[in-house]
Amino acid sequence: MNSQRPDIAVIGGGQLARMMQQAAVGLGVRLRLLAEAEDASAAQVIPDHIVGDHTNLSDLQAAASDARVVTFDHEHVPPPHLAVLEAEGHACRPGPHALIYAQDKALMRERLAELDVPAPAHRVVADAAELDEFVESVGGYPVVVKTTRGGYDGKGVWIINEPDAATEAFATGAPLLAEELVFFTRELSALIARRPSGEIVEWPIVESRQKDGICKEVVAPAPDLSEAVAVAARDIAERIAVGLDVVGVMAVELFETADGRVLVNELAMRPHNTGHWSIDGAFTSQFENHLRAVLDLPLGPVEARETWSVMVNILGGSVDDLEGQRAVVLTRVPDIRIHLYGKSVKPGRKVGHVTAVGDTLPDVIARARRAADLFEEGKTDE
Amino acid sequence: MNSQRPDIAVIGGGQLARMMQQAAVGLGVRLRLLAEAEDASAAQVIPDHIVGDHTNLSDLQAAASDARVVTFDHEHVPPPHLAVLEAEGHACRPGPHALIYAQDKALMRERLAELDVPAPAHRVVADAAELDEFVESVGGYPVVVKTTRGGYDGKGVWIINEPDAATEAFATGAPLLAEELVFFTRELSALIARRPSGEIVEWPIVESRQKDGICKEVVAPAPDLSEAVAVAARDIAERIAVGLDVVGVMAVELFETADGRVLVNELAMRPHNTGHWSIDGAFTSQFENHLRAVLDLPLGPVEARETWSVMVNILGGSVDDLEGQRAVVLTRVPDIRIHLYGKSVKPGRKVGHVTAVGDTLPDVIARARRAADLFEEGKTDE
Repeated sequence: MNSQRPDIAVIGGGQLARMMQQAAVGLGVRLRLLAEAEDASAAQVIPDHIVGDHTNLSDLQAAASDARVVTFDHEHVPPPHLAVLEAEGHACRPGPHALIYAQDKALMRERLAELDVPAPAHRVVADAAELDEFVESVGGYPVVVKTTRGGYDGKGVWIINEPDAATEAFATGAPLLAEELVFFTRELSALIARRPSGEIVEWPIVESRQKDGICKEVVAPAPDLSEAVAVAARDIAERIAVGLDVVGVMAVELFETADGRVLVNELAMRPHNTGHWSIDGAFTSQFENHLRAVLDLPLGPVEARETWSVMVNILGGSVDDLEGQRAVVLTRVPDIRIHLYGKSVKPGRKVGHVTAVGDTLPDVIARARRAADLFEEGKTDE
Repeated sequence: MNSQRPDIAVIGGGQLARMMQQAAVGLGVRLRLLAEAEDASAAQVIPDHIVGDHTNLSDLQAAASDARVVTFDHEHVPPPHLAVLEAEGHACRPGPHALIYAQDKALMRERLAELDVPAPAHRVVADAAELDEFVESVGGYPVVVKTTRGGYDGKGVWIINEPDAATEAFATGAPLLAEELVFFTRELSALIARRPSGEIVEWPIVESRQKDGICKEVVAPAPDLSEAVAVAARDIAERIAVGLDVVGVMAVELFETADGRVLVNELAMRPHNTGHWSIDGAFTSQFENHLRAVLDLPLGPVEARETWSVMVNILGGSVDDLEGQRAVVLTRVPDIRIHLYGKSVKPGRKVGHVTAVGDTLPDVIARARRAADLFEEGKTDE
């Protein structure tokens, strides 16, 4: 434990907090961590950490205690606890008044409609009858049903093709949001950082490619992006950041449609998987600007340093010893940046990522995929 | 403390170990630190640390214990202790057989002469009579006198213009090395990394600019460097790394003379101040390749990512609160990368560095100097 007062308390010990620490070391920013376990990803690299539960108020208070600012590795801290922290004088960034929209998809949809931000048609549905009404209103199946809270990486999301298909969703007992299934041509992500003083920076719009509902690849910038779509995407992110008074980094996941529309899919009020490319590919990473934003420091330039940056997630596969696999990957793909999270391998779990950069997109994509494949399965398709 | 076995024990808790940790986080490498104090620069950011003394064998043994490899933030570990660690089966990288040449300038000069590496004329001098003989052999004053061990940043170095000027040096009682004073046009640095398996990478040759014997600025690559001098510098570094069986990063500080010769000034067998630019300016930093080298992992590409990278040290000045000064610096010089070491400010102490990158050298130099000036004195000369 440091004897000096921490600058920022980070709630949650995942890879986002871990990567914040890399940026914090350079900035001379002292982090204190509330981690779920002694060997959590970020607890491995942040000396000043407390092991505790983010749903336990006294653990949150212990972490926040003498820190100047509180921020988050995830959005799962109960809003009433955040209200207590704020009432006790702790600056939570983003604040609970903003974070609630990243926690509750129904509230998010409602608020974004007020901000006139384009979104899929949607409705909170209490039962099968209300779902039927919604299906009819959008012209029939298929539709999407989501739990309003707690879903991530494809969990808590169902594609509904017929009335019976919603049984499992209703059986959860959780509040549900029904949404129009958007026939998008691709998914984009708009990444923005905002300071309390209002300064905003926006990274280049990226393309995000999913696999089984999990972000698998990100191409920065999004290839063949029309200027109109780029402007629309940036405008949406800025309108949300300002409208919701977001402080820190926010990612807006977007659908691009064949007719050139951009619709909001999800919000994340923290550094986001679609921004990991910025560590190696942008002048200032999302992690550094998140720390700078929550400390109300000037934000760094966010332009891409390379023509193309491609990030590919390493998802838990048949290789158990990722660290042992490093030598193989670095031998076969020398020009790659690797990021391992210190997590044990479980099927499909995000355990690291790789980033390739360069001038020729197919080559950059191939290198990043090859490295990720080698970390996942120990071989490639070549 | 981590429950898992550390990959590398790092002896010494200075900024070099601190910056190793930034690289270690990405690689998923677990460091254990032997730090001189609980709040040492690197102990602030490496959870698995022991507070102890690098001259105390049992502290070294405690740090090395279950680590796979031992490496160093500085060259001051007593060789007999290293011999014990090696005898106990700890892999020291670089090994004591190499490190001794970074510890003892007289041995270094002798060994480099055997390797036929160009160097200033030199001689170990026991007394004023021997110094007189040496002065005569090089054609008269001035000459340089250095303690063979322990000098750094201009300490333990005297420029001798007349017989009486050496009194202070002889009064130290330390073994002394006399050297020809080379009338160099500038100082260069060759940075190399070498694995136990023999793989070598060499970063671009840089120019290093001193102030009062302390490295103040580094320009990468060295401007207007002739290909002949670049080849000679790289060849020297490679011959030394192979000849001395160096493992890890080594910096060779060089004099370039008006007639195009390159002479070895000093060696450092660890990441070095003249390589800090590589964090922001090269594809793989010296810190990452040092870790990869000592773990015998494939080394990363070291080419410059930018036309010019300029690193300027922040030396302790009239600004006491460096962290408080961040906002001023980042407001006035937005396009700068800052690296603070978490150290208290003392006059002339290296407490951080800044790096600017870009296409126009005068602009890049100006930005880096402006940022460093603001951190040191709170104002610039503009």
